[in-house]
Amino acid sequence: MHFTRFFTRWIKNYSAKDKKLIEAVKRITGVKPYNVELYSLAMKHTSIAKENTHGFKESNERLEYLGDAVLGAVVAEYLFKRFPYKDEGFLTEIRSRIVNRESLNRLAIKIGLSQLVEYEGRKRNSQTFKSIYGDAMEAFVGAVYLDKGFKYCRKFIVKQLLIQHYDLEEIIETTTNFKSLIIEWAQKNNKDINFETAQKSATKKSNKQFKVKLLLDTELIAEGNGYSKKKAEQDAARKSCEALGIDKNSI
Amino acid sequence: MHFTRFFTRWIKNYSAKDKKLIEAVKRITGVKPYNVELYSLAMKHTSIAKENTHGFKESNERLEYLGDAVLGAVVAEYLFKRFPYKDEGFLTEIRSRIVNRESLNRLAIKIGLSQLVEYEGRKRNSQTFKSIYGDAMEAFVGAVYLDKGFKYCRKFIVKQLLIQHYDLEEIIETTTNFKSLIIEWAQKNNKDINFETAQKSATKKSNKQFKVKLLLDTELIAEGNGYSKKKAEQDAARKSCEALGIDKNSI
Repeated sequence: MHFTRFFTRWIKNYSAKDKKLIEAVKRITGVKPYNVELYSLAMKHTSIAKENTHGFKESNERLEYLGDAVLGAVVAEYLFKRFPYKDEGFLTEIRSRIVNRESLNRLAIKIGLSQLVEYEGRKRNSQTFKSIYGDAMEAFVGAVYLDKGFKYCRKFIVKQLLIQHYDLEEIIETTTNFKSLIIEWAQKNNKDINFETAQKSATKKSNKQFKVKLLLDTELIAEGNGYSKKKAEQDAARKSCEALGIDKNSI
Repeated sequence: MHFTRFFTRWIKNYSAKDKKLIEAVKRITGVKPYNVELYSLAMKHTSIAKENTHGFKESNERLEYLGDAVLGAVVAEYLFKRFPYKDEGFLTEIRSRIVNRESLNRLAIKIGLSQLVEYEGRKRNSQTFKSIYGDAMEAFVGAVYLDKGFKYCRKFIVKQLLIQHYDLEEIIETTTNFKSLIIEWAQKNNKDINFETAQKSATKKSNKQFKVKLLLDTELIAEGNGYSKKKAEQDAARKSCEALGIDKNSI
């Protein structure tokens, strides 16, 4: 297998563009790609996609879908092992701060991926182009996964991306207080937020669970659960922020 | 490594409960577990969680978080390879139909996992207990992943779960038409749905992209994009259904 790959690479005449990409992949991941076409596709924004012989427009969107999932799983495991005594709410929140569009945009610029992305269109500040680098970052991860397999891809994500480019301490310190966030957002938008608490039954006192409903004016947005009222409120607020698309930039 | 594992297993005195669990894991995955405690934790609902020496309540919630991510990645890759000419919207939708709470609940019951879940509380029809089996299903996948590694876990998910228990053809046929869904929902709730289309600029005619806003009464719920008006409308409708928590059961 390896011999075949070597041989294929040896006899292939790469274009100048491919050669540049091969060097970039080597710089970013540490090794040359087996299949440069995967990376080439990962850098192809849908704005320049052309139909292939199957009538299908080939862009990096499929690789982005795959890379998003692989990145999510690897970061999930990393945090799971790194924080053995933190609950899943904490882990979910930290992960979403690592892999959100904004972080991935920044990451793509930091590692030089942004310079490789091919796209067309001048409106670089429009909505579509806001996520172009982050999308390409995910597609790149998808390409590494298909090219080199899970173990290698995991090592790449953890060593070259997470450890080198993220300050976990800082991320943890600035973790969002969703209750404050949604209250602030509501005030700004002249809306009322109400938390309705209902203590849930449990056979043992120690396991009393709380259920909290978040109402926006009179409309139920989400329900939260937790073993304290505070936790249930945070849970309801987090789910509501997700449902309403509220983040720090909304304020 | 294998010898150590064998030796550890050999000298360990398992409880009757653990022995039952070991047999169940073997029946479900095809092989005995290395570390039965992982599976035992995966079956422990938060309602019976006890604090460990670190003051941390040990339940299956952390494993559920991990298993959810691993399952997502494996199903993503499976669909990616199975449908090479389908776009990421299709892949995302099919995946969400495979791993949604309802499907995972059903799956947990089918493979007999539901009989192993430990929980406390009589309100089995309440909101919390609606997802108890599906949550345990994800936690079980998390346990398999930690116990056996990625390759084995992927094989387990694809061969024992996906291929045996899902009818992909049927899933594809019944894929939701989000535009119809949200219109039906709005009619039932006496609300108005409006799609506002604005054609986006593009330098090449072939790449004209459409942007569609979905308004509920006068409120903007979501924006969709696509290379046809129809695609952009579906995108806006799908995002709006997500934001408003609308699914087929809402109708």
